[in-house]
Amino acid sequence: MAVGQVTPTKMYPIEGVRLGVASAGIKTPGRVDTLLLEIDEGASVSGVFTKNNFCAAPVVLAKKHLGGGGIRYLVVNSGNANACTGARGLADAALTCEKLAELTGVHKSHVLPFSTGVIGEYLPVQKLIDALPEALANLEANGWETAAKAIMTTDTRPKQVSVQVEHDGETITVSGIAKGAGMIRPDMATMLAYVATDAVIAQTVLDDMLQMAVNRSFNRITVDGDTSTNDACILIATGRVGTPMIAEAAGPLYQAVSEAVVSAMQSLSTGIIRDAEGATKFITLEVDGGATAQECLKVAYAIAHSPLVKTAMYASDANWGRIVAAIGYAGVHKLDASLVKVWLDDVLVVDGGERAATYTESLGSVVVSQSEFTLRVHLGRGSAFERIWTSDLSHDYVTINAEYRT
Amino acid sequence: MAVGQVTPTKMYPIEGVRLGVASAGIKTPGRVDTLLLEIDEGASVSGVFTKNNFCAAPVVLAKKHLGGGGIRYLVVNSGNANACTGARGLADAALTCEKLAELTGVHKSHVLPFSTGVIGEYLPVQKLIDALPEALANLEANGWETAAKAIMTTDTRPKQVSVQVEHDGETITVSGIAKGAGMIRPDMATMLAYVATDAVIAQTVLDDMLQMAVNRSFNRITVDGDTSTNDACILIATGRVGTPMIAEAAGPLYQAVSEAVVSAMQSLSTGIIRDAEGATKFITLEVDGGATAQECLKVAYAIAHSPLVKTAMYASDANWGRIVAAIGYAGVHKLDASLVKVWLDDVLVVDGGERAATYTESLGSVVVSQSEFTLRVHLGRGSAFERIWTSDLSHDYVTINAEYRT
Repeated sequence: MAVGQVTPTKMYPIEGVRLGVASAGIKTPGRVDTLLLEIDEGASVSGVFTKNNFCAAPVVLAKKHLGGGGIRYLVVNSGNANACTGARGLADAALTCEKLAELTGVHKSHVLPFSTGVIGEYLPVQKLIDALPEALANLEANGWETAAKAIMTTDTRPKQVSVQVEHDGETITVSGIAKGAGMIRPDMATMLAYVATDAVIAQTVLDDMLQMAVNRSFNRITVDGDTSTNDACILIATGRVGTPMIAEAAGPLYQAVSEAVVSAMQSLSTGIIRDAEGATKFITLEVDGGATAQECLKVAYAIAHSPLVKTAMYASDANWGRIVAAIGYAGVHKLDASLVKVWLDDVLVVDGGERAATYTESLGSVVVSQSEFTLRVHLGRGSAFERIWTSDLSHDYVTINAEYRT
Repeated sequence: MAVGQVTPTKMYPIEGVRLGVASAGIKTPGRVDTLLLEIDEGASVSGVFTKNNFCAAPVVLAKKHLGGGGIRYLVVNSGNANACTGARGLADAALTCEKLAELTGVHKSHVLPFSTGVIGEYLPVQKLIDALPEALANLEANGWETAAKAIMTTDTRPKQVSVQVEHDGETITVSGIAKGAGMIRPDMATMLAYVATDAVIAQTVLDDMLQMAVNRSFNRITVDGDTSTNDACILIATGRVGTPMIAEAAGPLYQAVSEAVVSAMQSLSTGIIRDAEGATKFITLEVDGGATAQECLKVAYAIAHSPLVKTAMYASDANWGRIVAAIGYAGVHKLDASLVKVWLDDVLVVDGGERAATYTESLGSVVVSQSEFTLRVHLGRGSAFERIWTSDLSHDYVTINAEYRT
């Protein structure tokens, strides 16, 4: 199941990036499960990775290679996470980089490996290596849509986005793909995202831009509070457009490009929530009036992770008692309940810590019966604001996760 | 649904405590929903309450009254939580105490009020007051079993326990009842528990004994991570047995009584988990080898709150990848994955951070196909140990919470 209809964005190529896919038969014979992304020399590449202590072998290696710079290839497989696979897992990831380096004439440290799928099983590395020539053979600048499909696991639809901005008569493009549907929470999830732009961006600016954009997109979504072992988000700047180098995080060109990157990443990350396992609702959670951003996030995640709130939303039940209970246990020190307000879209539900005088059940029902709505909380403590996105908890969520072996 | 068969414990009366019930028709006409607990003068009474910032009106009042001492009556209603009801809610709770005080000739501050049920609706206080004479009329020392039934909400079975210990030829009795099935997590849940003993215990010792026992029972259970607005656990020492006054937390008499209290509270709290909403599995989670108790608890709760682990358990799927993912994101600083071990009962599943050489899927399946089993984690960092209890996440959990209005 997935929330809402999605018309796939038309994908614009990024000069300096080519994508190719292959079928390695890693989990399912015949399924396209392998993606290569080729980057021209001279690009800047930045990445953020899962903070899970059990991070997977490819994550360990990708972080190491990224530190050395000069990245030319990303190699991604679905169907197997190569996580919790110890020394053999690391050797398998390293061998993949080595074989791709041999085939392409780059140094093995210029390859970043990524895996997503089942945890704890050894990667069938020879199958992956055997598929590399096929992926190399079909590398093309227009390969984004095929690439988005190749990295899907429990996703029911591909996530892709292309955004263009104009600057001094030049068109700057940002294109990206992502995968993810479950094991999703902040600090990366079972989520992979690859975003590229043709803008010219200095490495340090790119690093900061990625962190900022991730904190407004992928680090603000949650399905089930589970952080996976394999998550990564990569931002590539090929520098092939005619605009000047962005050497600092300021000025109109920086603004234009960073907003395009945020917009692309928000589109991909909310696409993950719309396609969340079993989701029937797409819920935007806004918390304002916090003393700090941190306490706004605490409240937002307490609500978003409450199975009682999530099942009520699934039932289209405007059960505000469960919402205030979650606000109350979110860990905000000395929260004054009598200052708290809650809205469902524009309907004031809770005022002064109790049911608003103007509120009726039917007003709330109309809002939560929609497939998309906003739940807004005011804390009455300050001026901090945070926004996150989440989904409901349905029978299908249980069915999918009781049957699928991640 | 509920896990396992339970033969209700034979309940022994506590001298100095009488219980009476009535049908006030608070939510459902005719249902027994009101409980009075009468305590003889001279008893010590201690309580712990929810830490939810939206704590309910009766919780506010009970905490206040308890501070003044001399408690003679507990009045409990199910069917309505009197939470998020503002000034009117407080007035309703106060009126209940006042009317009961009038009927019994005690001071209103010697009454503790408790409510459990729907959040955010005003208490039909007159119905409750009208039912008080009926409850007073049937007060009896043997009323524990009827009382256990009167406080049920989504519970499918009553929770009751009686434990006796011998000391110097005297028999000391601990009897208790509890309610709770959902909105359960540490720091109290939608849970009420009333435990009494005839031992003679000084107030300060009783306070410490209650906190210690709660930290080994009610504060170590979780169904869904939701902390409710109404939780309370009350421990009463009537001092009617012939043993000496326990004036400090040491010595064989203290040991005997505190162990009986812990045992009673563990029985009640695990009874809540066995009866957790939709539960098909009763899971004991043990984490050892932590540097601190806190990090053992972090790991235990990360596993216990993971919807992915819980749905796998429901499916009798020994999906250890999800377990290690939860361990990895539990927030243990610089956890060395290569030292982590995981067992399902006595089966070693994960060793050195990857699948144990001796492990096979079928070994794990045998364990998790049982309705009760232990999941044990070794962290390899120190000697701290913690144990908690939890349940799985089933279709019935979703059904119950998508339909029931808490």
